[in-house]
Amino acid sequence: MQENTKRYDDGMAFLLRYENVAWFEDGKVRILDRRIYPQVKFVTCHTHLEVARAIADMVTQSAGPYTAAAMGMALAAWECRHCKTDARLEFLRQAAEALATARPTTAPRMRKIVNGSLAAAKKSAAEGSDMPAALFDHALANIQHRYAVMSRVARHLVDLFPPKARILTQCFGETIVGTMLREAGNRGVELQLFVPETRPYLQGARLTASVAQDMGFPVTVITDNMVAATIKNKKIDLFTSAADTICRDGQIINKVGTWQIAILCDYFDIPYYVTGIPDSSTETAADILIEERDVAEVLQCGGKRTAMNGVKAYYPAFDITPSELVTGIVTNNGIYSPDQLDEYFSSPSIGFYD
Amino acid sequence: MQENTKRYDDGMAFLLRYENVAWFEDGKVRILDRRIYPQVKFVTCHTHLEVARAIADMVTQSAGPYTAAAMGMALAAWECRHCKTDARLEFLRQAAEALATARPTTAPRMRKIVNGSLAAAKKSAAEGSDMPAALFDHALANIQHRYAVMSRVARHLVDLFPPKARILTQCFGETIVGTMLREAGNRGVELQLFVPETRPYLQGARLTASVAQDMGFPVTVITDNMVAATIKNKKIDLFTSAADTICRDGQIINKVGTWQIAILCDYFDIPYYVTGIPDSSTETAADILIEERDVAEVLQCGGKRTAMNGVKAYYPAFDITPSELVTGIVTNNGIYSPDQLDEYFSSPSIGFYD
Repeated sequence: MQENTKRYDDGMAFLLRYENVAWFEDGKVRILDRRIYPQVKFVTCHTHLEVARAIADMVTQSAGPYTAAAMGMALAAWECRHCKTDARLEFLRQAAEALATARPTTAPRMRKIVNGSLAAAKKSAAEGSDMPAALFDHALANIQHRYAVMSRVARHLVDLFPPKARILTQCFGETIVGTMLREAGNRGVELQLFVPETRPYLQGARLTASVAQDMGFPVTVITDNMVAATIKNKKIDLFTSAADTICRDGQIINKVGTWQIAILCDYFDIPYYVTGIPDSSTETAADILIEERDVAEVLQCGGKRTAMNGVKAYYPAFDITPSELVTGIVTNNGIYSPDQLDEYFSSPSIGFYD
Repeated sequence: MQENTKRYDDGMAFLLRYENVAWFEDGKVRILDRRIYPQVKFVTCHTHLEVARAIADMVTQSAGPYTAAAMGMALAAWECRHCKTDARLEFLRQAAEALATARPTTAPRMRKIVNGSLAAAKKSAAEGSDMPAALFDHALANIQHRYAVMSRVARHLVDLFPPKARILTQCFGETIVGTMLREAGNRGVELQLFVPETRPYLQGARLTASVAQDMGFPVTVITDNMVAATIKNKKIDLFTSAADTICRDGQIINKVGTWQIAILCDYFDIPYYVTGIPDSSTETAADILIEERDVAEVLQCGGKRTAMNGVKAYYPAFDITPSELVTGIVTNNGIYSPDQLDEYFSSPSIGFYD
């Protein structure tokens, strides 16, 4: 147990090393390239537009784009360091727009992040402080706030686990994966994680499984077509996923594949718990543009073309899970029924993006 | 239309060129390597044990192993060509066992194929004819019989399609894919095919999509986690798959992933039709051993390792779809309810493996 504890503590430290996600320093933002992880390489961005490009190209994923955008705002402040105050703030407004809209589906949440940076920039201008440093500090405070909030979410989530828990997850929930495993480890839960590989980017196999392995938890990868067989044969207790957006009406926008797993959970009568902070500004999924990405990704596997030339493909990056397929929404403030999120918004809570 | 007709006729010819599946000639069996198709390469087997190895290694898939096994029996007859009759027949009995059990899940059906070859060998011995040639002729007759039977299945299947048909299929049904498309083309059905890529071997992307493309039909590949989104957004009319075994009680054993698509069809209220010949000798799925294959396949994508060392995997090659999720079973003799297959067995029919 001692050794195991050490391992997941180390793994958590590894996961949470901020500089492994996105980091502003010396006029550059370095972003961990999650497309090739567990190989560790970084993409270096010299302008905020390169940061926006990296977000669009999925160099970083899950919560990573929010960190990258905030660090990108610090870089933008550095880019315009020789301008006068009005011009700087105008430059930053444009940078905020470019970063927020790098990926369409996450734009509403991204806007909140960069708006926070803009407010910090105005404050810095008024105080005459070092603006890139102020925006860097703001980005770091965002991350630390997220870790604190997601640690609370993890405590409520692990409350739902049996002592020997066989947990299915999907894609890569970044912070919640680390905080969930740390919480389960601290409580002595015997947790086995089952992870669909999550084509085409393989976030499940490359990221979620690697974090669990690093932290000393047994983890089993399956391909995305083995979910029903795994729920049945491996006696899965519970499915949990993060969400790109939890709408006010309880609809869940998350990595494509989430919806069909939720349907399978309904069929097999096992619970599906979504983790995260409901988005007060998104009433329903129809308010969000579902991104379709380059189909070349679907037509390759490990960089090799799979199908003949001329074959078409379809790549919706996200899908929408209706609220009736969601057992509960696990927030920083406790667990809510997806059709009663108004209670979440009306109760005192530590907001995350608000 | 003329050009299109020509294309699917050519494609059909290409699909049905027997020597592209498995072919005995000059003391060798050449097998088209479906693991890397649409790249065209062959595996050459000099003994029937090499044929069994190739079947186990999934060089050929779908109906291919049955053809390979029958051709392997011709090769076995060639291997023992200098032995006396009794020794030859004993050698062939052992070869039949090795070929039939190359993959556990298909063993019962494979046994019927090699038993047919054994009967042909005894007849040849009694007549004093050239035994390898007799077994080759027997293998060829098997294939021709299968094409004739599956053309009848295809006619019943295409009866179910609307004039503009958006059809979802799974993995690679080999003969039925070609016969279905030819039949749809002949009738002027505007058919669009949607194909999950079918990890880890990618039979959907590499084989089914290539055949459709070759035959001039629009075909769209998705990853295996996009099925729900595709059924909804692309307005799929009908899901159809072949089966490795259609049990007497209507349970379907097929490539892993079939079951979860069947569950999705139930949720979306679209029909799922299974094509093939029910297996009179398999009462229920519990009679069949579900093969678990080498997990190294799941942990790679395009030959590249995906997850960190130490991460485990699970690879059930097949799953079992219960009869209540099957709308109908499309046979050579018409369409049957999965819980009324006794009617199929009691009516006069052209058997396939019987």
